[in-house]
Amino acid sequence: MEFSLGEIHTRVGGYIQGDANTKVHGVSSLALAQKGEISFAESERYVEEAKSSNASVLVVPHKFPKPQNAAVLRSDHPRQTFIAVMMLFDEAKPRLSGIHTSAVVAEDATLGDNVTIGEHAVIKQNTRIASGTLIDSGVYIGFDVEIGSDCVIGPNAVILEKTKIGNRVTIHPGTVIGGDGFGYVWTDDHHRKIPQIGAVVIEDDVEIGCNVCIDRATFGETRIHRGVKIDNLVQIGHNNDIGEHSVIVSQVGLSGSVTVGKRVTLAGQVGVADHINIGDGATAAARTGISKNIPPKEISWGAPNRPMKQVLRELASLARLPRLFREFRELADRVNRLEKNAKAQ
Amino acid sequence: MEFSLGEIHTRVGGYIQGDANTKVHGVSSLALAQKGEISFAESERYVEEAKSSNASVLVVPHKFPKPQNAAVLRSDHPRQTFIAVMMLFDEAKPRLSGIHTSAVVAEDATLGDNVTIGEHAVIKQNTRIASGTLIDSGVYIGFDVEIGSDCVIGPNAVILEKTKIGNRVTIHPGTVIGGDGFGYVWTDDHHRKIPQIGAVVIEDDVEIGCNVCIDRATFGETRIHRGVKIDNLVQIGHNNDIGEHSVIVSQVGLSGSVTVGKRVTLAGQVGVADHINIGDGATAAARTGISKNIPPKEISWGAPNRPMKQVLRELASLARLPRLFREFRELADRVNRLEKNAKAQ
Amino acid sequence: MEFSLGEIHTRVGGYIQGDANTKVHGVSSLALAQKGEISFAESERYVEEAKSSNASVLVVPHKFPKPQNAAVLRSDHPRQTFIAVMMLFDEAKPRLSGIHTSAVVAEDATLGDNVTIGEHAVIKQNTRIASGTLIDSGVYIGFDVEIGSDCVIGPNAVILEKTKIGNRVTIHPGTVIGGDGFGYVWTDDHHRKIPQIGAVVIEDDVEIGCNVCIDRATFGETRIHRGVKIDNLVQIGHNNDIGEHSVIVSQVGLSGSVTVGKRVTLAGQVGVADHINIGDGATAAARTGISKNIPPKEISWGAPNRPMKQVLRELASLARLPRLFREFRELADRVNRLEKNAKAQ
Repeated sequence: MEFSLGEIHTRVGGYIQGDANTKVHGVSSLALAQKGEISFAESERYVEEAKSSNASVLVVPHKFPKPQNAAVLRSDHPRQTFIAVMMLFDEAKPRLSGIHTSAVVAEDATLGDNVTIGEHAVIKQNTRIASGTLIDSGVYIGFDVEIGSDCVIGPNAVILEKTKIGNRVTIHPGTVIGGDGFGYVWTDDHHRKIPQIGAVVIEDDVEIGCNVCIDRATFGETRIHRGVKIDNLVQIGHNNDIGEHSVIVSQVGLSGSVTVGKRVTLAGQVGVADHINIGDGATAAARTGISKNIPPKEISWGAPNRPMKQVLRELASLARLPRLFREFRELADRVNRLEKNAKAQ
Repeated sequence: MEFSLGEIHTRVGGYIQGDANTKVHGVSSLALAQKGEISFAESERYVEEAKSSNASVLVVPHKFPKPQNAAVLRSDHPRQTFIAVMMLFDEAKPRLSGIHTSAVVAEDATLGDNVTIGEHAVIKQNTRIASGTLIDSGVYIGFDVEIGSDCVIGPNAVILEKTKIGNRVTIHPGTVIGGDGFGYVWTDDHHRKIPQIGAVVIEDDVEIGCNVCIDRATFGETRIHRGVKIDNLVQIGHNNDIGEHSVIVSQVGLSGSVTVGKRVTLAGQVGVADHINIGDGATAAARTGISKNIPPKEISWGAPNRPMKQVLRELASLARLPRLFREFRELADRVNRLEKNAKAQ
Repeated sequence: MEFSLGEIHTRVGGYIQGDANTKVHGVSSLALAQKGEISFAESERYVEEAKSSNASVLVVPHKFPKPQNAAVLRSDHPRQTFIAVMMLFDEAKPRLSGIHTSAVVAEDATLGDNVTIGEHAVIKQNTRIASGTLIDSGVYIGFDVEIGSDCVIGPNAVILEKTKIGNRVTIHPGTVIGGDGFGYVWTDDHHRKIPQIGAVVIEDDVEIGCNVCIDRATFGETRIHRGVKIDNLVQIGHNNDIGEHSVIVSQVGLSGSVTVGKRVTLAGQVGVADHINIGDGATAAARTGISKNIPPKEISWGAPNRPMKQVLRELASLARLPRLFREFRELADRVNRLEKNAKAQ
């Protein structure tokens, strides 16, 4: 996997200064780059670092001084251009293909063209997997699962029975889709389990991180709408409905029957109580504890959640409290003296 | 798997209105149900939704108007009756049986009747597994593990050496039982590991979610008493003792040597410091940071934890603070004026 | 695995009182120990418990009264001595060896002496594993991974491509190293993924718990410096740099591009925003939400993080608020009366 600067330029645009034949075989940061790698400097803050970098090619803004030892690719938007370069290298990665002999695939499973099944993967009865999808090593796919085309299911992930997954979905290693919702009724002297017989539906273009848990519905479905992005170690409870293109950051936890609108952002470690509604375009800042519905577009924070502005005001007040206590004592003393004087008259 | 309404009625009780021969093969919500499925409407709030549902049978309360296109099963407690219907379908699920040829089972492992071992499961030396237990695909069972009867260990779960598991225990996929407790002593210039040579004991009728971690004791045991229910992504530290029938919701984290009483509820994302005692019947609301013992039956909240009522009072005060600051300024001005007048006299 | 008290004494020091030939085959707590086990009593608080213990040998301080039924090993530092005893038993554990026939090892993988590869493990192309390392059952090791000597990778862990791991590193079950960083740019009408083509580097003597996620760098590297200890269910984001000997407790979550200094402690459930710097020797108490840099050695708490002392002052003020409101009302009444009197004069 090697590109010349000229080839890169053809694919991502920009303006070359230096030798278009310079070869690069990898991408790295300014500090870590070796000869033969391409890196980038977003602004003139990085001039010194660029000078001492070993990178052979740098993506830089227009006015950035050209380092002596590197060719440059100038761009109006160096970050965007650099992402395009990274995609070039990413797409060039070798792909596996075929079904490994150690995989156990049910006879009645339906596999599309160019499906890849890794070592020790298990595909149970009545499963359908469409073309171009990669089921990596050690993955478990349960009964009656449907997976669309061009998906990637990472090593040791578990997709339990009846799950439906759309096209171009990526599920990273260790994630469990379709675990039982958490529901019991206290009966006589013990918790009696409410059967969890619904399913999980994941629409197109969803990406789900590592060691995530998405629970099946009690009945009906837990649905992750198209374009949703979920980070590592997130908990999605039974019967949740996560709207299109919403972003759920690491370690967020959603209870059961939560409805999240479109293009919502839940930042890291947010928690959401059951049956909550979060409106389209709303944002919850990191660690918000959501126990009240959030209207569309509101930025929410705190536990319990309140509009961000209110929380900031309260925090400012809280910081001034020790002084208020002191001033209150002083004022009370002055009132004491006024009363004493009044009585004395 | 198909039942007639008449058969369902025989099994779960209630009063039929409509054709007792109506066949149902699945359970779903009012909105998602197809012809041939059974659904339920808990109260008259759902009259309109019931009218437009495609379900063939509905479980409803007594006064609920019968929709034209569905038979109904009337019940004093529609939710309870519907749970019983779900259990009917759940119990009818086909079960695996036998030991898959790809599983690696130690020669000296002792397996009871009707034990099922899934694809690529690994059962190490000196393990005992009692009758009716399912060890699903990709599970790892370490040395000297004991598992009782009628347990289910989900795909890719890991049960490390010396763990003891009772009867009717369910452990969901990706969970790790018996990881090392987190203990080091700083020695000269590095952290020296304290060996973690104790065990984990899980009593009867415990259910543990997906991607949970339960650490072994440093020495002695970490014990999960009978009937405890643990949700996904929970951390249980070394030497914890979790009392009977307690409920631990998703993403809760317990440090080492924590004692939790009977029928305690720890809601989502609660954290507990080491050596804490939580009394029988206590509840910690979501996200409580527990660094002080909780007496029996107390409802606790906040970080650090305080009685819920106190936290609510403080939150109310906090919300009124900006106004207090304003009023304080006004009062101070009035005292200024009084002082000035007093001096002028 | 059995030692006589005499042998233990030779290995860990101290003073024997009782029969040096007493045999012990296990370690346990005072309450749980059986005949043939060794336990310890840290101080005279445990005299009664020691009397009723079934342990055959007890490690105790010098003045501790000798129980009738047990030999004792006296020590200036009973806890340290007992840890040494635990290490003795821990080191005596039988080790696996060899490559299990069910493992799938790429032909061009380079394995050092005494490498052990467990059942169903997968080792992909161009991987190098140095001597004495154990890759346990069900582990996935991706392309171009390097692992040093005397490492342990626990069952079902996933080490993705290009990861570099030093010597004497332990990674517990279910952990995923090298998952994609969480990065997207909104483009037209969808989130466009930023390729994550960097690596993870883990230096010598690092220990990483169960079900942890450590993301690869977008480009460049995510680096865990030597001696770092990471507990279960922790999230380490892309491009993080975690300094030597730092300790990261369970369920902590770090966003992208976070720099953590040397010997930092992040207690349970701490969250850290992206691009944050945490200075050498700093401590964040449990559940701190870090959105501002922390200077070296500072003890930080709260969300947003503030110096611990400030948070404690604020919490004390908050607790006194309801009383302040009451007193404020009373003071306002007294000012009212003063004003009325002043007017009346």
